Amino acid sequence: MRTFLDCIPCFMIQALRTGRLVGLSDEKILRLLIELGGKIKKIKLDDPPPETAVMVYDLINSYTGEPDAFKRVKRQATDRALALYPELKKEVTEAADPLGLAMRLATAGNVIDFGVSSSYDLESEIQKIIHQPFGRWDEKEFKKAISQADWILYLGDNAGETVFDRLLIETMGHKVTYVVREKPIINDATMEDALEAGLDKIATIISSGCATPGTVLSQCTQKFLELLKKAPVIISKGQGNYETLSESGVPIFFFLKAKCDVVARHLGVKKGDLVLAYSS
Amino acid sequence: MRTFLDCIPCFMIQALRTGRLVGLSDEKILRLLIELGGKIKKIKLDDPPPETAVMVYDLINSYTGEPDAFKRVKRQATDRALALYPELKKEVTEAADPLGLAMRLATAGNVIDFGVSSSYDLESEIQKIIHQPFGRWDEKEFKKAISQADWILYLGDNAGETVFDRLLIETMGHKVTYVVREKPIINDATMEDALEAGLDKIATIISSGCATPGTVLSQCTQKFLELLKKAPVIISKGQGNYETLSESGVPIFFFLKAKCDVVARHLGVKKGDLVLAYSS
Repeated sequence: MRTFLDCIPCFMIQALRTGRLVGLSDEKILRLLIELGGKIKKIKLDDPPPETAVMVYDLINSYTGEPDAFKRVKRQATDRALALYPELKKEVTEAADPLGLAMRLATAGNVIDFGVSSSYDLESEIQKIIHQPFGRWDEKEFKKAISQADWILYLGDNAGETVFDRLLIETMGHKVTYVVREKPIINDATMEDALEAGLDKIATIISSGCATPGTVLSQCTQKFLELLKKAPVIISKGQGNYETLSESGVPIFFFLKAKCDVVARHLGVKKGDLVLAYSS
Repeated sequence: MRTFLDCIPCFMIQALRTGRLVGLSDEKILRLLIELGGKIKKIKLDDPPPETAVMVYDLINSYTGEPDAFKRVKRQATDRALALYPELKKEVTEAADPLGLAMRLATAGNVIDFGVSSSYDLESEIQKIIHQPFGRWDEKEFKKAISQADWILYLGDNAGETVFDRLLIETMGHKVTYVVREKPIINDATMEDALEAGLDKIATIISSGCATPGTVLSQCTQKFLELLKKAPVIISKGQGNYETLSESGVPIFFFLKAKCDVVARHLGVKKGDLVLAYSS
């Protein structure tokens, strides 16, 4: 998915929100916005938004002097999700359709995203999610696909959301290779975050090699590209992976919450909708 | 009210939305956003947002080549409101509390604002408004003030909203001086727009002398400033007038819909709330 004009003010909003989240002074944030404003001319609308996001967050990091400004909030998000885990695990185990519930919960976990909003209400999102209608929900296709697969490639998204991914992986019961970002970017899950969520207990964790908040194939390792090619089923979490992979031609099950109008329009759903979209 | 950091991305959103509304090509809008990005350094946070808006809309006009880009949408808004007028007039006349209803409707009319959103649902807003709770609603103070006043100074806001102002003015039954912007800016009401709404039949219409989407006292005519000083009651419509006058020390009844978080926070209400706030 390319970058839309709407993404330009959104990058400014992300810079402002992140500046506040990491405690920059108003004066520093103003200087950051001024500098970012001067860089709009460098944005290539043909690139997916996560590629531009790297420029934005590199600039933010140059103001914070901290290459992993979200470290603290990522840790908190993981801890918060881990605290919910035993109860959710019990609910899934006792559900009439454990896989269906775990799929919904894994999508609900995508509400944890500091790139789009600095606050989220995880507990209330979970309560809503169990019964609410979905914008698009290719559940039958997904269940059929995994019933025929001997392993799954799982592209993670944010720290904290990882715990919900773990629940889905445990429920599916398949051998899974779980993919994280190469380096810290926003609150996206890195190897360290995946380990904190306990994903190493039930999956092989690898990096895609890509350091954008998505999966830009030209930046990925040969090893990842080979897995992408031969995986019988691919799960992709979140908008960033969708934005970078939706037109790749690779058959993928995209689990995400449509957090902005641009992505919602691209998917043919409403902003705020939870989505499981199969794209091949 | 000063300009907040949040207003900076909002100016970008306004430029994007206005560019689309007046039919600029994506390429032109991109160039507009790039140029606006380069001008962020000129924004003075001590100024109220409407002062900066002049720079933004001057820039937009330089791309449209049209000093009154909103002429068509202003005319449509007025026509739409005039079509509703007979039915609303009847409802007000037959209401148990005609003044109370006219006050609510005049505030509902503030939903017409292309500076904040390019679409609005006037009819549904009106239906909601008649019974919904308000964020702050200093109705008693207002009714008492006008019962003791022999004339009222009424600061208008947007074209179309003018028709709802007319209904309130007719219902109050006072002698009114109605104030419009000096020149076209966004969809704010000018003399021409006020005449189209039929305000000349029930009020004396004057320009404030100010061409921002608000009332910046340093730009106003001596005549307006004198009226402001001696008016027994002042009604002010909309965010722009609030942003420029809320800290002026002039006692004013502000009727508005809080359309953004910054103004809502400043007023101590929620975004989307309808407000009648007396400030002295």
